[in-house]
Amino acid sequence: MIKAGIIGSTGYVGQELTRILLQHPDINLVQTTSHSYIGQNYDQIYENFREIYSGECQEENIEKIADELDVIFLALPHGIASKKITPKILEKTKIIDLGADFRLNSKETYENWYNTEHFSENLLKEAVYGLCELKRNKIKTANLIANPGCYTTCSILSLAPLLKSGIIKDDSIIIDAKSGVSGAGRALNLGVHYNECNESIKAYKLASHRHTPEIEQELSILANKDITITFTPHLVPMNRGILVTAYATLKEKIKYEEISSIYKKFYENEYFIRLTQKEIYPETRWVKGSNFCDIGFTVDERTNRLIVVGAIDNLIKGAAGQAVQNMNLIFGIDEKVGLTTIPIFPA
Amino acid sequence: MIKAGIIGSTGYVGQELTRILLQHPDINLVQTTSHSYIGQNYDQIYENFREIYSGECQEENIEKIADELDVIFLALPHGIASKKITPKILEKTKIIDLGADFRLNSKETYENWYNTEHFSENLLKEAVYGLCELKRNKIKTANLIANPGCYTTCSILSLAPLLKSGIIKDDSIIIDAKSGVSGAGRALNLGVHYNECNESIKAYKLASHRHTPEIEQELSILANKDITITFTPHLVPMNRGILVTAYATLKEKIKYEEISSIYKKFYENEYFIRLTQKEIYPETRWVKGSNFCDIGFTVDERTNRLIVVGAIDNLIKGAAGQAVQNMNLIFGIDEKVGLTTIPIFPA
Amino acid sequence: MIKAGIIGSTGYVGQELTRILLQHPDINLVQTTSHSYIGQNYDQIYENFREIYSGECQEENIEKIADELDVIFLALPHGIASKKITPKILEKTKIIDLGADFRLNSKETYENWYNTEHFSENLLKEAVYGLCELKRNKIKTANLIANPGCYTTCSILSLAPLLKSGIIKDDSIIIDAKSGVSGAGRALNLGVHYNECNESIKAYKLASHRHTPEIEQELSILANKDITITFTPHLVPMNRGILVTAYATLKEKIKYEEISSIYKKFYENEYFIRLTQKEIYPETRWVKGSNFCDIGFTVDERTNRLIVVGAIDNLIKGAAGQAVQNMNLIFGIDEKVGLTTIPIFPA
Amino acid sequence: MIKAGIIGSTGYVGQELTRILLQHPDINLVQTTSHSYIGQNYDQIYENFREIYSGECQEENIEKIADELDVIFLALPHGIASKKITPKILEKTKIIDLGADFRLNSKETYENWYNTEHFSENLLKEAVYGLCELKRNKIKTANLIANPGCYTTCSILSLAPLLKSGIIKDDSIIIDAKSGVSGAGRALNLGVHYNECNESIKAYKLASHRHTPEIEQELSILANKDITITFTPHLVPMNRGILVTAYATLKEKIKYEEISSIYKKFYENEYFIRLTQKEIYPETRWVKGSNFCDIGFTVDERTNRLIVVGAIDNLIKGAAGQAVQNMNLIFGIDEKVGLTTIPIFPA
Repeated sequence: MIKAGIIGSTGYVGQELTRILLQHPDINLVQTTSHSYIGQNYDQIYENFREIYSGECQEENIEKIADELDVIFLALPHGIASKKITPKILEKTKIIDLGADFRLNSKETYENWYNTEHFSENLLKEAVYGLCELKRNKIKTANLIANPGCYTTCSILSLAPLLKSGIIKDDSIIIDAKSGVSGAGRALNLGVHYNECNESIKAYKLASHRHTPEIEQELSILANKDITITFTPHLVPMNRGILVTAYATLKEKIKYEEISSIYKKFYENEYFIRLTQKEIYPETRWVKGSNFCDIGFTVDERTNRLIVVGAIDNLIKGAAGQAVQNMNLIFGIDEKVGLTTIPIFPA
Repeated sequence: MIKAGIIGSTGYVGQELTRILLQHPDINLVQTTSHSYIGQNYDQIYENFREIYSGECQEENIEKIADELDVIFLALPHGIASKKITPKILEKTKIIDLGADFRLNSKETYENWYNTEHFSENLLKEAVYGLCELKRNKIKTANLIANPGCYTTCSILSLAPLLKSGIIKDDSIIIDAKSGVSGAGRALNLGVHYNECNESIKAYKLASHRHTPEIEQELSILANKDITITFTPHLVPMNRGILVTAYATLKEKIKYEEISSIYKKFYENEYFIRLTQKEIYPETRWVKGSNFCDIGFTVDERTNRLIVVGAIDNLIKGAAGQAVQNMNLIFGIDEKVGLTTIPIFPA
Repeated sequence: MIKAGIIGSTGYVGQELTRILLQHPDINLVQTTSHSYIGQNYDQIYENFREIYSGECQEENIEKIADELDVIFLALPHGIASKKITPKILEKTKIIDLGADFRLNSKETYENWYNTEHFSENLLKEAVYGLCELKRNKIKTANLIANPGCYTTCSILSLAPLLKSGIIKDDSIIIDAKSGVSGAGRALNLGVHYNECNESIKAYKLASHRHTPEIEQELSILANKDITITFTPHLVPMNRGILVTAYATLKEKIKYEEISSIYKKFYENEYFIRLTQKEIYPETRWVKGSNFCDIGFTVDERTNRLIVVGAIDNLIKGAAGQAVQNMNLIFGIDEKVGLTTIPIFPA
Repeated sequence: MIKAGIIGSTGYVGQELTRILLQHPDINLVQTTSHSYIGQNYDQIYENFREIYSGECQEENIEKIADELDVIFLALPHGIASKKITPKILEKTKIIDLGADFRLNSKETYENWYNTEHFSENLLKEAVYGLCELKRNKIKTANLIANPGCYTTCSILSLAPLLKSGIIKDDSIIIDAKSGVSGAGRALNLGVHYNECNESIKAYKLASHRHTPEIEQELSILANKDITITFTPHLVPMNRGILVTAYATLKEKIKYEEISSIYKKFYENEYFIRLTQKEIYPETRWVKGSNFCDIGFTVDERTNRLIVVGAIDNLIKGAAGQAVQNMNLIFGIDEKVGLTTIPIFPA
């Protein structure tokens, strides 16, 4: 059994991770730490765990648990992990960081977008961006995984085959993304007070959301040139789910079927990518509770634009599920183990 | 592997059952039939099954599949099963009926409340009421299971220890129940058109809901005398979940702790029953996606009434999950197999 | 024009009151004060008022504005108004308090249930309980109105004709109430964080909610004897609305039509009370955005219980609307002015 | 008093129109017809009208009521009005058609996109496109108003100043629109069955929605050249509201303030257009229940794109409210009469 711990286990992502790890046949979840709930039993904080997991939340001590555990997951606000993680820790255990600190290759880009100092520039090269479908081989031997953001996972997976194949104009990409409210986390905030977001939709952080450089970095690698995008997130009155509607102009006229072949080939052996049939588009309800990413598209022949739609469960493929997928890869376990739940509907 | 089939697989209950059975390690789901979708692939009807289960929906032929299958689940509107099920079929296979036709022991009561003829009075004695926690031994040897209703499961489990112990006045029981919309099924109906039930709550079928006699029958058995109750269902704008708030007057003053002991003893070894701590009450979110029934209560000392709160996922413990729990019992499988999913939150 | 001010204008109740008063033809809303938003423009706090009302929120100074204004509304947490209001202020202006401080006639009952000191016992006799349909004449000459709570308004109006007529058993009343989330106000709180209450229902404050003694006080006055009730509030995932399902045992068998006559007579000339037809029951959607209270009922003949259902918009008839109805009465304006909006649907 | 009638009064649009007209001081609502509910009282169909309006729904007879009424509103599925309206009717009464039949100037475009025959080509020239802010003068003398669609109203108003000023590239416009469920109407349909759309978001009718040519027609008039756009509608789990997020590339670099001036000047005297402050963006909750259209934008300097956000209440400014605004213009009433309700929040 692999011994695992979670630092920051009482946010929504930490909680989903706890849920998945407790149900994983090869994992012994030894430790759940929390900043806010030290000394409380886990099932008092999240009553879904009643009579299932009542582990006491402990104060974080990464130095100590690095000696004892095979893998440590970090689910923390940005700016903390880059202080905590050291080469010494990475010699002793595997780190899967669900925060943003190690996702961007460039310290400067990080500091610009996150408006905070980065404390471990030396580790940026060592960190592997944990988008499993695109980085599988590197992940297998990584010590430090930067688990991708929720919007980014859905955006990159939806567009990757296009950038790789070079059929779209580089400067034409617009991503209009929509997220359920759990993406905002459990910290109290007027914007996610029930009555403030229920029965309404809004765009937010226009032209300034921090997932933008992360998407650009990975699309640029795929395209082998610098890609700049427009990214607009929206808050949707629902608990879970991300829908990405992405727009790109085709360099030349191409038929649906040809593009479909590109997608099919690109994702040929990917269990967690499900391509929809022609004229069927992903909806968040069909992936809820699962690690799947559904992708579909159409060609707007009148404008020669491609419209790609992607959907994920933001807390699973967009966070905790992908983290476990990364863990499986690192430890040589079948990538799907613990992640084969069929989406739950209606939920 | 046990060979299973579902007749009526494309309603919400049938779909949840399909989902659970496909994930059950001991089951081979051979057949899914449907009245409305004959010839269509299952994942076209429910896209959560994309690339997971694309079995073609077939026309129902219970005579034929009774020869081939070990167990057949029926998820049909009331009044159909009592025509279809015959002693001959029951010689060949196990039947778990998720509808209402075999739940009431009395043909007369059935016909009064359901306002339709019952066609198999002779089978009413053979049918076992499949409330697993209360009828485990009978279920193990049954050929025909009448799987309980959703409101009834939650109501009976919440009140059973009280009736058994005799501490409440017989004529004092009021059950005020609240259900998510999936309880109304997938058939189109103005009452569950999105805008007609979203952002509103209503009581319906006051003093006339068909789950009433079912609750009374089972509470009467527990109390060993005739019990009549008042039952009021409400429609709540959410997908899943049932909350029961039940009221009963105590015969004498009893302390919380004493009643708590009664509950603990009654449900001592029941995995799927989770009793809450004092001053903690069940909420539907904590059982969503699981087969648990959470129960808590308080004593209103000013009025000497007991207020009991119970919560289940209506599609799982209230339907498909309990049906699988019944199946496990019948086939000698550990009762929990396929049903240990930790509730999903926030969902 | 009547000059009005609101102390505590930036909670949900204060905001709804602001909205109603701004649309009232006879009112000049001179002042909106706020504890949390001093110096901010109102339309920055509530953007629905964009280009309609941008008054700067001022620090509260009741002594000063009592000189200038004809009426002051208080929408404050309990325990504050009883400190602020003095006989001197009441000589200078009319006070309509939307909080709890002057609702209970007994200082002792207040202090027991609210667990805090009451600072103006002398004013309790002067205060008039502002349930307009029941206290109209007293309200007209009052200087200090205790505007009723939301649950209480709906509960008392639903049951009043029964208590007055004496057809139910005194000790048989159970009120199972359901509220939308706005009842909990705008203060941040984990319980009303979007993901914590969306898609779930719960009972809370069982046998201990502070609206209980308020309901009992008024029902006792109507019955002319002490009435004790069981009251259970529930939180429903919707923005607005209260539904009350009340149970009471009939002393004797009485037909629906006879009880219907009692209700019709009791509410004969009441514009804001709408009695439903037989077998039609109130739903919160039908009163949303209005000052109406819909009431319907049935007789459960099997148990000889009456089940009464009432529905209001908690922020209007349950708070701000009723406060304006009180104001209209005090100033001799037609009671309906500013309050005749037809309920908005679907909303 | 102006005598008005509604043909098709029992859909959601018809109902909202009924509500607004009943509250309009200059209107006598004489007639409400319905195809599905002939002979039923209006408040039995929509119980929000209980004790307010119980007019019996009558069979439509436009010839007859054209003689009696000053104005007739049509709220019908497309393809019907073009059969019903004749020059003779237009001589006798004013027609405000809330359907699609007279919105497009070109019969051919209509027939292509709506896939049905148009029966009154001769009236297309006479019909005035009733987007009040853009066509006010023509509306005043019109006999036949084609009231704009919901998505179109919000899209055109959001983009009009840009097209007029010529600062954006003609072929760069992408409109990503999000609608509440009431836009789909009251007709039963699996897609808007509660559990099928609650807690999920989807894109639909990609590159094929019928509001596309309507938007293009009006933007082309403003730009004085042919404009082709990409338009993607989404279904959002909420009752009301449309949010438009529109993208366009700037021809040259322009500062926020300069574009802001263009918008301010364009909408200088428009009561129903509310421009948001810098870095504030419209949200549907702030316009709910009102006839306002809120508009805000930002410049994405990295890509030189403009991102414009617009929000309306789809049933009011997107349908019934704008129809009444048109009526006010035609009859020389102040444009705002009956339409000054402050948005209701939280609702």
